[in-house]
Amino acid sequence: MRKATELGERRIIEIIKNRIETMPEMPVPFGDDVSAVRINRSTLAVLKTDMLVGKTDVPPGMSLRQAARKAVVMNVSDFAAKGVSPVAVMVALGLPRSCTEDDVEQIGLGLNEGVREYGAHVVGGDTGEASDLVISCSLLGFCSNRTLVKRSTAKPDDIVAVTGEFGKTAAGLKILLEQKAVPKEIEKPLVDAVYLPKARLKEGTALAKAGALTASVDSSDGLAWSLHELSVASSVGFRIDDVPLSPEAIKFARIFGLNPLELGLYGGEEYELVVTVNPECWGKAESVMKNLGSHLFRIGTVTKERKIELTTKKGTLTIKPKGWEHFKS
Amino acid sequence: MRKATELGERRIIEIIKNRIETMPEMPVPFGDDVSAVRINRSTLAVLKTDMLVGKTDVPPGMSLRQAARKAVVMNVSDFAAKGVSPVAVMVALGLPRSCTEDDVEQIGLGLNEGVREYGAHVVGGDTGEASDLVISCSLLGFCSNRTLVKRSTAKPDDIVAVTGEFGKTAAGLKILLEQKAVPKEIEKPLVDAVYLPKARLKEGTALAKAGALTASVDSSDGLAWSLHELSVASSVGFRIDDVPLSPEAIKFARIFGLNPLELGLYGGEEYELVVTVNPECWGKAESVMKNLGSHLFRIGTVTKERKIELTTKKGTLTIKPKGWEHFKS
Repeated sequence: MRKATELGERRIIEIIKNRIETMPEMPVPFGDDVSAVRINRSTLAVLKTDMLVGKTDVPPGMSLRQAARKAVVMNVSDFAAKGVSPVAVMVALGLPRSCTEDDVEQIGLGLNEGVREYGAHVVGGDTGEASDLVISCSLLGFCSNRTLVKRSTAKPDDIVAVTGEFGKTAAGLKILLEQKAVPKEIEKPLVDAVYLPKARLKEGTALAKAGALTASVDSSDGLAWSLHELSVASSVGFRIDDVPLSPEAIKFARIFGLNPLELGLYGGEEYELVVTVNPECWGKAESVMKNLGSHLFRIGTVTKERKIELTTKKGTLTIKPKGWEHFKS
Repeated sequence: MRKATELGERRIIEIIKNRIETMPEMPVPFGDDVSAVRINRSTLAVLKTDMLVGKTDVPPGMSLRQAARKAVVMNVSDFAAKGVSPVAVMVALGLPRSCTEDDVEQIGLGLNEGVREYGAHVVGGDTGEASDLVISCSLLGFCSNRTLVKRSTAKPDDIVAVTGEFGKTAAGLKILLEQKAVPKEIEKPLVDAVYLPKARLKEGTALAKAGALTASVDSSDGLAWSLHELSVASSVGFRIDDVPLSPEAIKFARIFGLNPLELGLYGGEEYELVVTVNPECWGKAESVMKNLGSHLFRIGTVTKERKIELTTKKGTLTIKPKGWEHFKS
């Protein structure tokens, strides 16, 4: 009998899904970034649940306040990818017996910071004892049926784009987990990318509202994995010709003799959006982002053929479907 | 600095609540059985999150399938108390690395059983690694503003009633935790009360729909604690003159020289509803329950004075504000 460590997170979800009777006419299919329930002909209630566990999701040196904030942000990022704003957040909290009054306060502060940063409120929750720190957030939001951007609707010849540069959190995690000493000027931005992640909510909701996106996903399991998920959901492939890398990640890679592209493609916990845009809407998408003081990076094209390839000056290579996976990573 | 074990669940919730900015015009105050968000003038989206942790919520001998079903039922019970039907359930699952494929399947089956029993569907979730088994369910449902029955609206002279007999789960837990040997004919119903709890959803929704209730709470932390919570929320007291006890619990208490009333008042994990009814609506409430094949037990009266007293043939005693509490129990 196979154990969780052999099955991996994705197979575990598959097994459970196979035992669940599907709700008729689900407006968003299982496996997309969020779930949804139809309220009326035009409006959806949108839901997301993501659980932070101390053991796997809180790197060394991250404060409880940061961990609690992160537990919110990782959920908001999925809402951002769908173009939906969260309204209310429920929190289920598992605390070790050794937790102190100050720890509890820090968690409260972090939760509040996380939700207020994105315009939502904590409206309730539950607390109990657990061996690990567990912070499970559930988000509720509302949107028009037509606004929600799925994973499954990318079309060949669409432009593939991302909302930011990659590689920072992969480098930051290496600094924290492998205790790498790095120059001060790159240490802070790299480590902050881990401690204080940001969800691209204003970008995601503005792009969705403008009708600029054909499909979207967040990059929380890494850029390569996001492309793989979009590819499977939309039955398309990608020809990628550019991966925007953060200058700090490039510097970090140079110091330690690493391939910066590996940091950018296969890192996780990076909360950028990976979107596809109809070429006719590209100008609109760019100007929406410019108005927000943000930038949309064109990284390639959607292809009919279901391969995910990266073309650089050195040639063409296949982007592997790998990324962060619980139990396996 | 005080630890979680000294603070207790209720103080921990208080500390976090104090750090949270409250949503303006929350239709249901913090601390009620569910949370809610207004969708429009007349409709609420209702939310509940409750987390089951293997260490504290899964007694010996309970299968994973039963545990997963229970994780749903304990949430549904809170919806039942408010008169709201759940529509969609999100599940955050923390699994130990040792979990097998069969374990995962059993959890999937139990979750599906739990939600389908009460007319809801699992619509999404999240899975990750944790030291304990963690099953955090979040429920979404909808109701009219006027249907939702709060804790804070009991009035003096209302009738206090419950939807069933008490004491079974307290006795069942003693059998399982203290390995007490009992006659077969009482063992099964007592142990089943623990392994296969039932939420009073059809009763709660029908009573609420009929407008028969002034206030309501479930009895998951014990009857005494439920009365205490209603008392605090509504600023009233209770004169209780009868606590309906299950015949099996009475037999169990007799065998072990226990006070059956203690089992009925201070046990936990009993998912009956504790409701208050305007005397003019009592007939209607009774007939609603009769139509469902259920029974409403009148147990006392709401009083202006904020004492909770039980009058029996032997005299009057105070019902203490104690019940199950995480970290302390």
